[in-house]
Amino acid sequence: MDLYPEPIERLIGKLSKLPSIGRRSAERLALKLVSSDLEEIEELRQALSDIKTKVHNCNKCGNLTDKEICDICSNDRRNNRIVCVVEDTPNLIAIEKSKEYRGLYHVLNGLISPLNDVQADNINLDSLLERVDSGEFEEVILAISPTIEGEMTTLFLAELLKDKNVKVTRIASGIPIGGNIEYFDSETLYKALEDRREL
Amino acid sequence: MDLYPEPIERLIGKLSKLPSIGRRSAERLALKLVSSDLEEIEELRQALSDIKTKVHNCNKCGNLTDKEICDICSNDRRNNRIVCVVEDTPNLIAIEKSKEYRGLYHVLNGLISPLNDVQADNINLDSLLERVDSGEFEEVILAISPTIEGEMTTLFLAELLKDKNVKVTRIASGIPIGGNIEYFDSETLYKALEDRREL
Repeated sequence: MDLYPEPIERLIGKLSKLPSIGRRSAERLALKLVSSDLEEIEELRQALSDIKTKVHNCNKCGNLTDKEICDICSNDRRNNRIVCVVEDTPNLIAIEKSKEYRGLYHVLNGLISPLNDVQADNINLDSLLERVDSGEFEEVILAISPTIEGEMTTLFLAELLKDKNVKVTRIASGIPIGGNIEYFDSETLYKALEDRREL
Repeated sequence: MDLYPEPIERLIGKLSKLPSIGRRSAERLALKLVSSDLEEIEELRQALSDIKTKVHNCNKCGNLTDKEICDICSNDRRNNRIVCVVEDTPNLIAIEKSKEYRGLYHVLNGLISPLNDVQADNINLDSLLERVDSGEFEEVILAISPTIEGEMTTLFLAELLKDKNVKVTRIASGIPIGGNIEYFDSETLYKALEDRREL
């Protein structure tokens, strides 16, 4: 016999499939939601519906947006001679939060991953090449996580872009700020040494 | 300028109002939900709707249920001569999980709280008195958290029940298992000493 009535158990099941929500949190959330106002629940349901109906990828860069062209692409105070290639919108937002970068973006919405059967033509690559070919940019920054699939994608892109008339750079790998050298793997230390800079 | 399109920002706002979901988790959840299948989202929306339309309080004990009488009240293998009074369904479930108790429950769905303008007649008390008066029970266990409002409710109930023909007990207060005496307040230590048991 379940401890919870079926509808609550079903909601717990749905919630606990979401990232970073375990069974215990899902139970707490479901019981909180049961005692919420009907209006609150309806607003949440509407918000869930709207992210599917109103949000899509920017026609220019692939970023998530509720407009045709996203706020970053249409912001004329940004430097439109430089483009930063990222895996997805969460990565774009992480870079935006650092407030270091004021150029444009190109969002791949995926990484090349032969194991998961994701090839170069399954990600938002063609439109990047078109943008580069149109002579829009002076520099393309590859800002893709240095994971196995990220490296594969970065190297693939570097190869594709190398004969284009554009400067191609990639973000630095190394020890994160606040990290202790002792705790990082030799691959990271190797990269940190290799990419050392003169002071 | 917001980092997220309005529909995503709105969902983040809704999610971060839920217990134990901070802004960061809400962002991660919202971005995960954006990339979920429409079907997944619809199932979640249905589950949210169902907890409001299909779940209500058990007509007998006040527990949450999707039936007229909850599974515990209608389970004839439980001891129906003993009733455990709890604040709400999460507390009932915590006690069920301990697997120590096999009697019935009565769920108050609230605690007396003059500060929040919750009086005795705003909680599920009358039907407890009716159940007790019908001679259904040999023992009423008060299993209400020893917080200020919990204590107030426990003492109020004890007073109400004292002239009824029923044994009234309350759960023990003391040091939780695994807790270190050093870290508990004097109120708890006082109770733990006062309620000491012979070995």
